[in-house]
Amino acid sequence: MTVVLLAGGGGGARLARGLQHLLAPGELTVVANVGDDVEILGLRVSPDLDGVLYALSGLLDGKRGWGRAGESWNALAAAASWGGEDWFRLGDLDLGLHLVRTKALREGSPLSSVTAELVRRAGLATTILPATDDHLRTHVVTAAGTFAFQDWYVRRGHRDEVDGVVYEGTESAAAAPGVLDAIGAASALLIAPSNPYLSIGPILAVEQIRSALETRRTRCVAVSPLVGGKAVTGPLDRMLLRMAGGTSAAHVAALYEGLLDALVVDEADAGEAARSVELVPAPILMRDGDAERGLARRVLEVACG
Amino acid sequence: MTVVLLAGGGGGARLARGLQHLLAPGELTVVANVGDDVEILGLRVSPDLDGVLYALSGLLDGKRGWGRAGESWNALAAAASWGGEDWFRLGDLDLGLHLVRTKALREGSPLSSVTAELVRRAGLATTILPATDDHLRTHVVTAAGTFAFQDWYVRRGHRDEVDGVVYEGTESAAAAPGVLDAIGAASALLIAPSNPYLSIGPILAVEQIRSALETRRTRCVAVSPLVGGKAVTGPLDRMLLRMAGGTSAAHVAALYEGLLDALVVDEADAGEAARSVELVPAPILMRDGDAERGLARRVLEVACG
Repeated sequence: MTVVLLAGGGGGARLARGLQHLLAPGELTVVANVGDDVEILGLRVSPDLDGVLYALSGLLDGKRGWGRAGESWNALAAAASWGGEDWFRLGDLDLGLHLVRTKALREGSPLSSVTAELVRRAGLATTILPATDDHLRTHVVTAAGTFAFQDWYVRRGHRDEVDGVVYEGTESAAAAPGVLDAIGAASALLIAPSNPYLSIGPILAVEQIRSALETRRTRCVAVSPLVGGKAVTGPLDRMLLRMAGGTSAAHVAALYEGLLDALVVDEADAGEAARSVELVPAPILMRDGDAERGLARRVLEVACG
Repeated sequence: MTVVLLAGGGGGARLARGLQHLLAPGELTVVANVGDDVEILGLRVSPDLDGVLYALSGLLDGKRGWGRAGESWNALAAAASWGGEDWFRLGDLDLGLHLVRTKALREGSPLSSVTAELVRRAGLATTILPATDDHLRTHVVTAAGTFAFQDWYVRRGHRDEVDGVVYEGTESAAAAPGVLDAIGAASALLIAPSNPYLSIGPILAVEQIRSALETRRTRCVAVSPLVGGKAVTGPLDRMLLRMAGGTSAAHVAALYEGLLDALVVDEADAGEAARSVELVPAPILMRDGDAERGLARRVLEVACG
């Protein structure tokens, strides 16, 4: 059995961890969002790739939900004292990874190769792939202007209401090596409970990936990122209300039109019908490892029958 | 009164600190060696510039003699775990500075401008200048091969005996903005008790700086880096024996031929004559702040009469 998970953000990292626990070594491939990658202090930071890597390696800070456990913040404080930017929080342990990745990228390695080497160093049997090695960045359109994702999310505290999302670079972004093969060979295709606009959207904005999902020969199952119509974290419910007109399971399903066979939703959201998509109720809040594995098991059942 | 100090390494940073304490704000300009600059994990590291900056800002680790007090080492450990190089020790606080400098250099600022901004941020009245903004690197010739300075000094533990020193880039390296003006306007020119081959040599390898010293209209006074014919730290005594044939004050003075009016030497080294250079005995070991200020006072007396 081989499984491909499209993932971004905390929900993606957690479901990936649950799936890795259940599946045999080598059976899981995670395709991660790179639309919120950002250059900070001259370093390339890939928050969603790193979230998955840290979660799967046991390094993720469980409380914070991002970055590494046992983190310290000395380099960032020193950089700030010399005039460096410190609006994007980078811990010392985290910086170690960004230094190694940035150096390799500057020397010409594509992001997918750099990621593969990090995965090898972490001793993981799971494959982690960036959606693309090419430049692809999420921009958010608001009444106050259009902002690069992290400028809006972190620097402006995602206060501005979102009127639209633009993925810069889609015209030339190709799927990273391995992504299309993994999708083609998968016995189950999964979409994590991540923000459809901000985390999964940039993956699907790679035309080759969208086509591969549209022409899939296996079931594709998404997990809703809503619980009772509310986002577990982040601004998704506000975005859905404003851009899609509501926060029902049907509204979520509509964002994946043509790509989904089933949507796993929280029991509170299971009442509503979705056009041509099976709604499967399940406890989707991943409070702990047991919940992560429980959801992973349920999603695999829905995908594979 | 305006004073220019040519400096590199620990002796340079300590004498600079003593001089800054004695002189009025704005009277001191330190011209620092950049021959041992190195790129580590993609970051530009300038050990001698930073030693001076940290010493003058009260940030220097007094025990270690380099880097910052209260340092932590988490980023380097994390980088190593992902396959990054860790042979050159970079602390987290130190990294903050390297990140800010490297970003500014990549954006096109010359090293002298970046350094001026760091000095401004530190609130110093002293001017710190790199000898040059251009590429200039010290290489060490040994029986085992020719090595970039830090490869020999740190990575190989400066075990290989040195047959020669080569300064890469001298044919095109110009003095950094401000250096020649400072030398021309100085009422005293000082050379720190730093390794003449490895710390001061790369400064004098900038032809404009050497010429400015040769045609000086004020006294130039060096402090010997030897105490009783032995190096206080580092491999200088071995280098002098092998390359100059001895470790007397005269051997040190000969390395600065045509550039010196007086050489301040340890009392143990005062017996020997040096051709056309006045030898001035003084306690030159800078064990603490009092000793730094005492030596600074003595050197200024020798320079200014």
